[in-house]
Amino acid sequence: MDRINITVWNEYYHDRDEEAVKAIYPDGLHGALAGYLRDTGKFGNIRTATLWEDQHGLTDEVLNSTDVLLWWGHMRHHLVADEIVNKVFERVQDGMGLIVLHSGHASKIFQKLMGTRSDLLKWREVGEKERLWVVDPNHPICKGISEYIELPHEEMYGEPFQIPAPDEVIFISWFEGGEVFRSGCTFKRGNGKIFYFRPGHEGYPTYKNPQVLRVLENACEWAAPVQWPQVVTGEIRTKEY
Amino acid sequence: MDRINITVWNEYYHDRDEEAVKAIYPDGLHGALAGYLRDTGKFGNIRTATLWEDQHGLTDEVLNSTDVLLWWGHMRHHLVADEIVNKVFERVQDGMGLIVLHSGHASKIFQKLMGTRSDLLKWREVGEKERLWVVDPNHPICKGISEYIELPHEEMYGEPFQIPAPDEVIFISWFEGGEVFRSGCTFKRGNGKIFYFRPGHEGYPTYKNPQVLRVLENACEWAAPVQWPQVVTGEIRTKEY
Amino acid sequence: MDRINITVWNEYYHDRDEEAVKAIYPDGLHGALAGYLRDTGKFGNIRTATLWEDQHGLTDEVLNSTDVLLWWGHMRHHLVADEIVNKVFERVQDGMGLIVLHSGHASKIFQKLMGTRSDLLKWREVGEKERLWVVDPNHPICKGISEYIELPHEEMYGEPFQIPAPDEVIFISWFEGGEVFRSGCTFKRGNGKIFYFRPGHEGYPTYKNPQVLRVLENACEWAAPVQWPQVVTGEIRTKEY
Amino acid sequence: MDRINITVWNEYYHDRDEEAVKAIYPDGLHGALAGYLRDTGKFGNIRTATLWEDQHGLTDEVLNSTDVLLWWGHMRHHLVADEIVNKVFERVQDGMGLIVLHSGHASKIFQKLMGTRSDLLKWREVGEKERLWVVDPNHPICKGISEYIELPHEEMYGEPFQIPAPDEVIFISWFEGGEVFRSGCTFKRGNGKIFYFRPGHEGYPTYKNPQVLRVLENACEWAAPVQWPQVVTGEIRTKEY
Repeated sequence: MDRINITVWNEYYHDRDEEAVKAIYPDGLHGALAGYLRDTGKFGNIRTATLWEDQHGLTDEVLNSTDVLLWWGHMRHHLVADEIVNKVFERVQDGMGLIVLHSGHASKIFQKLMGTRSDLLKWREVGEKERLWVVDPNHPICKGISEYIELPHEEMYGEPFQIPAPDEVIFISWFEGGEVFRSGCTFKRGNGKIFYFRPGHEGYPTYKNPQVLRVLENACEWAAPVQWPQVVTGEIRTKEY
Repeated sequence: MDRINITVWNEYYHDRDEEAVKAIYPDGLHGALAGYLRDTGKFGNIRTATLWEDQHGLTDEVLNSTDVLLWWGHMRHHLVADEIVNKVFERVQDGMGLIVLHSGHASKIFQKLMGTRSDLLKWREVGEKERLWVVDPNHPICKGISEYIELPHEEMYGEPFQIPAPDEVIFISWFEGGEVFRSGCTFKRGNGKIFYFRPGHEGYPTYKNPQVLRVLENACEWAAPVQWPQVVTGEIRTKEY
Repeated sequence: MDRINITVWNEYYHDRDEEAVKAIYPDGLHGALAGYLRDTGKFGNIRTATLWEDQHGLTDEVLNSTDVLLWWGHMRHHLVADEIVNKVFERVQDGMGLIVLHSGHASKIFQKLMGTRSDLLKWREVGEKERLWVVDPNHPICKGISEYIELPHEEMYGEPFQIPAPDEVIFISWFEGGEVFRSGCTFKRGNGKIFYFRPGHEGYPTYKNPQVLRVLENACEWAAPVQWPQVVTGEIRTKEY
Repeated sequence: MDRINITVWNEYYHDRDEEAVKAIYPDGLHGALAGYLRDTGKFGNIRTATLWEDQHGLTDEVLNSTDVLLWWGHMRHHLVADEIVNKVFERVQDGMGLIVLHSGHASKIFQKLMGTRSDLLKWREVGEKERLWVVDPNHPICKGISEYIELPHEEMYGEPFQIPAPDEVIFISWFEGGEVFRSGCTFKRGNGKIFYFRPGHEGYPTYKNPQVLRVLENACEWAAPVQWPQVVTGEIRTKEY
């Protein structure tokens, strides 16, 4: 397989308009993530796209040349056009990997892929400590990760997270305030691999944590299609005895 | 728990208009299934509903008093109003059981719950032999079922069926013409249990087969909510150290 | 199905010899559990068996009339005879339900059924707070359980718990000291249903907690075989075209 | 990661003593498989080992330098020493990949890892047609594989195969005589990845089929450990508030 082409999609709202967030992510969340992935030197074309661009930056040309799409959104999910959501959905079914970040759990595309009210969970924004425990240490997404990732300040997400039973649960979070959360989960939908990764509130430098970034780097490699299989469906006329 | 209230929903198209089908199911597919379930004597209120009724027969009053909904549709999926689909979706998330039958794999509600293009599969309509092998014999849905169910004439459905990995695969079908299919699959979405059961083409007396009917009877008991849990989500203010 | 016959097996070591434990469980852990299950009035024959009895109390007659076996052991796993372990193993494969409690994770029978070093996990015995969060609220084992069970003092068990991916994860524990644990897990092995439930250190009155007891009551109903299926294997001579 | 070191283990009974089998596999099944894997040029050290060697060829030195072990056995499972089985078991828990072939389903090591009577299944040896349908086409093990693999003559294996629910079902077989089988299944045990692949009766040139060989090549890459994680278990003294 050729090198993996990645598109980092960002709502680009807090990090465009709020000084405190801009101080952490001067190039936006998308810029920070794309920059890290570029610096690894191991991927192909790495692009960014945001809500505010034409077609949210996800034209047919972009989508059709994307192997793995990262998705960060929070407060402007409702502004994402259904037409674009449907195109992303179809591309995932065809084989594109999708990495859904933090509050992307409430995005239209994630809800459509889950078949649940995945926007529903507990949350608390007081900057408490989070520990993401690895429960599947030999998973490709955990390469180079120690037994837990500790984030001194994060938003809390708590169970019951309204997702179907994941194919794999890789991280379970402990929160200082008393909650737990399935923070790293994989799903397949059609030919596409999906990874949901919980941490990443815009108010904390989570995407500067080397272990968090390593998880995302691993996830891009894991989620990339091994091939774009042609799935034969429809009427099959031959009955072969 | 009180006795289980069941609603059997049917597109009611072939069995309303085609003589050959009416000859098999004079009361419609819904009538045949509801009749069997009533005769077991073990359930509560058993109602039917069809596409052609106001709100497709699925008024708030009906849905809110239904514990398990059976769904049969084939050629008129597109006529089902999105508003009703959304109500069924919400009711499943709240805990209602859903049993999707045969070509219901392509219904709006099943696709919405799966998050895939579950309408896609192979098919062939030549009346070949099907054997549904039990692969999970101690599952509640298999109570009283022998090691396989043989149907002398059925439509063929073949893999790759575009569904997410099921929580449980209970039946795998063998077809005379050379294909296999995951014919009995369970899923959870929110609090709702879902069972997909493949056989049931309108042109064959499949729903007169005692083993097929027993599977559906078992599935109604399995899919019924054990409770209607109140899922606490949203902002949790208390941080308890 | 007839009423469910239950046997509660206990190592009966701490609760036989240590005053502090006897003060909590004067009839032994087995006595406490069997007493509760009897008081529900919903089960059949409820017996107890301990390590110190002939054949550990698990004679063929007992095993062959047991539908669900509960297993509590801690420091004397090595004294359980392999012959008895093998008989329990075979009975589970045939369809008997098995509920493994707390430190039973390190028992011979649980390790044999898991195919892993399930004795390995983190632990700390300082009497810290545990919260068992329900992540699958409509599971039969959660009937009547609120969104979490809080135990003010328990031993800590921490990930990575060396078990295969469970069929279902029902409870995830949060511990005051910073760890998480998959505390309620289901598995199938052959025709037998298995439920592992974490809490229950002998030094705390965990098995007097009404919610913990309700979980075990539910688990007995869930784990009971729906039937004792005759699995046809071996050479199949007929080739049917 | 360095290049993957592979050991192909073979009972080496039929292919040592029976003329008909020697005619197909003059270098033994192990020789045929090792030869193919070597010819790909993509792996590290590729060794073979057989039942008849000292320690069955699986010395500590060999095992400790093996990343992926392939296992073919049929009629001499009982001659494999428990001590060696235990060493393989521990190495899998530590992270070694294991690929179990055909009648290896009844091997001591596979049964020990499954926790079931995985030796039990249906079988028929009349050389009928098998079709292995791909049900997870974007799985790494399916790279380069078309929608099914057809083998004109194979032994039949039929359900219910006594395995735990696999983590992933990748292939489902159709047999001419009327049976189905979960023919390609993945499992994790500890840190080790396991792939069971059904076809490969010694009487047919199955391991000369390019698609079968490609599956095994892919499986070696998939099963190799991404790392050898150090799993921290045991008493954790620090309680961190």
